[in-house]
Amino acid sequence: MPQNIVIIGAVALGPKAACRFKRLEPDSKVIMVDQDNLISYGGCGIPYFISGDVSDPDQLQSTSFHMLRDEKFFRDTKDIEVMTSTRALSIDRRKKTVLVYNIADGNKRELSYDKLVLGTGSRPRHLPVTGPHLEGVFAISDLNKAIAIKREIAEGKIEKAVIIGAGAIGLEVAESLADLWGIETAVVEIMDQILPGIISPNMARMAQHHMEENDISFYLGEKVERFEGETRIQRVITDKRTMDADLVIIATGVTPNSDLAREAGLETSSIGAIVVNNRLQTSDPDIYAGGDCVEIMNLITGKPGYYPLGSLANRQGRIIGTNLAGGNAKFEGAIGSFVIKLFEISVASAGLNLETARKEGFDAINAFVVQFDHAHFYPEKDLMYLELVVEKGTGRVLGIQGLGNTGDGMIGRINAVAPMLKSNITTEDISNLELPYSPPFSSAMDVLNALGNTAENILAGKNRIVEADKFADWWEKRHKGETLCLDCREWGNAEPFVEKYPEHWKSIPQGDLRTRLAEVPKDKRLVLICNTGVRSYEFKGELRPSKNGGLICWNRHYRGHYLIHANAKELAPKLGVKIYSDAEDINPEVFS
Amino acid sequence: MPQNIVIIGAVALGPKAACRFKRLEPDSKVIMVDQDNLISYGGCGIPYFISGDVSDPDQLQSTSFHMLRDEKFFRDTKDIEVMTSTRALSIDRRKKTVLVYNIADGNKRELSYDKLVLGTGSRPRHLPVTGPHLEGVFAISDLNKAIAIKREIAEGKIEKAVIIGAGAIGLEVAESLADLWGIETAVVEIMDQILPGIISPNMARMAQHHMEENDISFYLGEKVERFEGETRIQRVITDKRTMDADLVIIATGVTPNSDLAREAGLETSSIGAIVVNNRLQTSDPDIYAGGDCVEIMNLITGKPGYYPLGSLANRQGRIIGTNLAGGNAKFEGAIGSFVIKLFEISVASAGLNLETARKEGFDAINAFVVQFDHAHFYPEKDLMYLELVVEKGTGRVLGIQGLGNTGDGMIGRINAVAPMLKSNITTEDISNLELPYSPPFSSAMDVLNALGNTAENILAGKNRIVEADKFADWWEKRHKGETLCLDCREWGNAEPFVEKYPEHWKSIPQGDLRTRLAEVPKDKRLVLICNTGVRSYEFKGELRPSKNGGLICWNRHYRGHYLIHANAKELAPKLGVKIYSDAEDINPEVFS
Repeated sequence: MPQNIVIIGAVALGPKAACRFKRLEPDSKVIMVDQDNLISYGGCGIPYFISGDVSDPDQLQSTSFHMLRDEKFFRDTKDIEVMTSTRALSIDRRKKTVLVYNIADGNKRELSYDKLVLGTGSRPRHLPVTGPHLEGVFAISDLNKAIAIKREIAEGKIEKAVIIGAGAIGLEVAESLADLWGIETAVVEIMDQILPGIISPNMARMAQHHMEENDISFYLGEKVERFEGETRIQRVITDKRTMDADLVIIATGVTPNSDLAREAGLETSSIGAIVVNNRLQTSDPDIYAGGDCVEIMNLITGKPGYYPLGSLANRQGRIIGTNLAGGNAKFEGAIGSFVIKLFEISVASAGLNLETARKEGFDAINAFVVQFDHAHFYPEKDLMYLELVVEKGTGRVLGIQGLGNTGDGMIGRINAVAPMLKSNITTEDISNLELPYSPPFSSAMDVLNALGNTAENILAGKNRIVEADKFADWWEKRHKGETLCLDCREWGNAEPFVEKYPEHWKSIPQGDLRTRLAEVPKDKRLVLICNTGVRSYEFKGELRPSKNGGLICWNRHYRGHYLIHANAKELAPKLGVKIYSDAEDINPEVFS
Repeated sequence: MPQNIVIIGAVALGPKAACRFKRLEPDSKVIMVDQDNLISYGGCGIPYFISGDVSDPDQLQSTSFHMLRDEKFFRDTKDIEVMTSTRALSIDRRKKTVLVYNIADGNKRELSYDKLVLGTGSRPRHLPVTGPHLEGVFAISDLNKAIAIKREIAEGKIEKAVIIGAGAIGLEVAESLADLWGIETAVVEIMDQILPGIISPNMARMAQHHMEENDISFYLGEKVERFEGETRIQRVITDKRTMDADLVIIATGVTPNSDLAREAGLETSSIGAIVVNNRLQTSDPDIYAGGDCVEIMNLITGKPGYYPLGSLANRQGRIIGTNLAGGNAKFEGAIGSFVIKLFEISVASAGLNLETARKEGFDAINAFVVQFDHAHFYPEKDLMYLELVVEKGTGRVLGIQGLGNTGDGMIGRINAVAPMLKSNITTEDISNLELPYSPPFSSAMDVLNALGNTAENILAGKNRIVEADKFADWWEKRHKGETLCLDCREWGNAEPFVEKYPEHWKSIPQGDLRTRLAEVPKDKRLVLICNTGVRSYEFKGELRPSKNGGLICWNRHYRGHYLIHANAKELAPKLGVKIYSDAEDINPEVFS
């Protein structure tokens, strides 16, 4: 029997649910309501619209065949009625009606439903700053806001922008403003790293460094306290400084839009998200919900989580469409996956990072590998950097993070691990990952296999990671004569160090070790130096008697940014030497 | 207690096992024996050495830090003794000795072992042709052969080459000869498609077409019968033709080198591969084996299979190294994964293709999707083509194949599915795959999600694939007036067809359908036409009453090759129309 379906929210989840349902039940009626005049657009494309990569907002709202997904499109092509500029005021679950209000003409109307779908999305998190409501302060909550921002920029009046929040949207918008519009752009973040909760501090520092080279300024660990200006924003006051600004973009995250659901008596969570089962039904089985307004299960921790992502909203929409038509499609949860392009690099993550894993109670460590994306003998290749987060004892893999170029090679590795994370895999599964191999695309022992092996070696106690601070400490006390840096690289790499620190730095290239073993002192703490950890790890095998030895990996300069770990930047000036180029820096990942 | 380890074979598995073991047991002794003088090289790089992409054979034999992995390297750096140009003649399992023979000086020597490793590899499959042994006929069985071939080419005397076998090596070498050396190159294959057993005939035809555009000739379904020439090859005689050739490369696959094992009484399989358990022990627990000489479990069929791949050999080597040192590492088997670069395209596969799945007794179908690698509104993007092989009834995913550009986007999608194939996943797992999303890297509903959805729709009977032959038949009988092609694209695409075939071709763009529904005849078989299947699939929903309707996807011209299905090339001239460009062709994937 044909049904009446009412859908509230028409950006991502709503249209997907509506279209899927209509394909399954063409005779049923679907009304979709949205308070905005623009609907069914790719919200994740907004930074690229601001930058100008996407020239027209219509492109974000069009199918791949250039049909604009407006009210007419849904009516003519999909037989779906859309009421735009229409706000849902309340739900009467007993009568099964929704009271809606047309913002344009002020009319109210009651819509009857057999089943109701809530795709009410999210809103910007409230930022507790003082100061008046000023022109030029925006939160990018929807496409109309983005159009307004771009209009201001295009008028050429914006010289200095401050972005509040160094999460994905904040960083993408920072790139847009600086790279394509030449605006002096600063990012203020209350946490002490960019992309907090997503990647490790080390990887965040590399990405930040790359953005700094592209003229973005960062103020981390700073709290915005006040906005100042007459009618328009002029200054942003943090707890540490005053910054001039004629544009402020607030990108401090979102919270679920669940007022309508809560007022209708539907169950919501402690963070205010709508609670749904794995069929995406709310506590009222005739009301479905998905997208940015719901809470879903984290498949790694087994606890509820909040994942306001367009990709999840789309897939949840299809599941709701199937279930509205009597199907039994299920959404089990999410592991949390992420990728971002930042100028010439990309950063991606799936599952938990080390910090989050520890917060969730896992006794976890992380392993890292730097390796070429393609076979090392193939002419076209580039280094990528991967981190694996694993639980001690069990060897369970909890997450993976990567940093690479803007090609698709690094994300292709994250893709390989992401789908397995919900299945309690271990480092052995990563060591034995069977990915297609050919020199133009991968290595016989791919970077992922090497990452699994490295993690296994660390868990087995063959590589124990020591914080970089420890090396800094050893180095500062080098005059005591307890520590000797043994450089396993070729002489050309070691030479400047040996010349500068003849008492503390010794060169024995890896290939000469066995014949020169007698030269290695037995009474000192040995710190083995190489570029990626491979040669010093090999070396270590030979030096077993010296139990207090350690390894340092010293990563190459990589595409204009540095593979820096921990407080390496502070160490470099202390050592006062440069290798290869100005861009070379120390990576004091210390194993002991 | 220190052990004596003897390893026979020093290309991929042997060195990996030796190095891993020595890191775990530095005090034990390892001797590695190889009949060749060149060892520890990346065999999969040979085509790139022939092409000149890799200029020197040393590069294939070097670490990523440019250390040549020769006897000296293994001795000095790894404390591993290597005996090159040394053939293992026999194993005395009771005495635990191996008798070896030095090819250079003729000396024999007996090596004692506590544990023995067989990494004896494979040899070219015997090709039953008549004719004398001629100069200029090669099988690329090792690096020395490749050096000999390249020497001949570099002398500039080779004008015409015939490659026998259109598997991976044959095609890679064909590209090397034609692209970089300008040699007139033909490939003869006994099966009726290239890459038989790996990809579908449709995908094979696309790849073949692309190679033909790059001046490679193909002779499929032909059997080589005879070689002719005086001292040097002059002609190749097949069952259909005579071909001039001054270079012949035989690339018809390999068989395991297991004579030594069999003569020592170790268990071997029906195809002559050494049988090993999941710890990679042979039927003698003190003898391990891996790489191209062993048979391993196919994790999809549960049956033994033969996978002579460098990537598996490397991983098996590490597992043997661990187990030699008393560990308990396991190699459960393989799903079979593959990628190849062919000029400007890449082709990859994981698991079973449709033909192999059916041979293995699965009642399987395949679904395909053409979609952009990145968000369709993002400026940098390219189409990719994916096929999913699924079992009817269960919806189990048995394999995936893809064709894309030479970037890493397509293989990144194969990577996402490959590791899950052993876990009995279904189309629902593909529909809900949670991959990192951002417009520069993927789509909110990624091509993989769309592929899962399409497969689900086909299994649910909403899309029934009909062979292209059926459309050809309908079209040939179009004068009977039973069939009408209904073009869902915009008028510009449909116009040439409507003008040429006014009685058989009608244009109703997707957006106009609902207002023009009355124009659609109810008494005809409707064939819906669009470019990728999306619009015609939508259209179909509206046309339910017409039960005998069908859909045709008509793929765009893509990077100079065609997304052609089945006998589309035969159909194009019959229709006699061109769209967009000469390169546009019909893709008669017919749904009814």
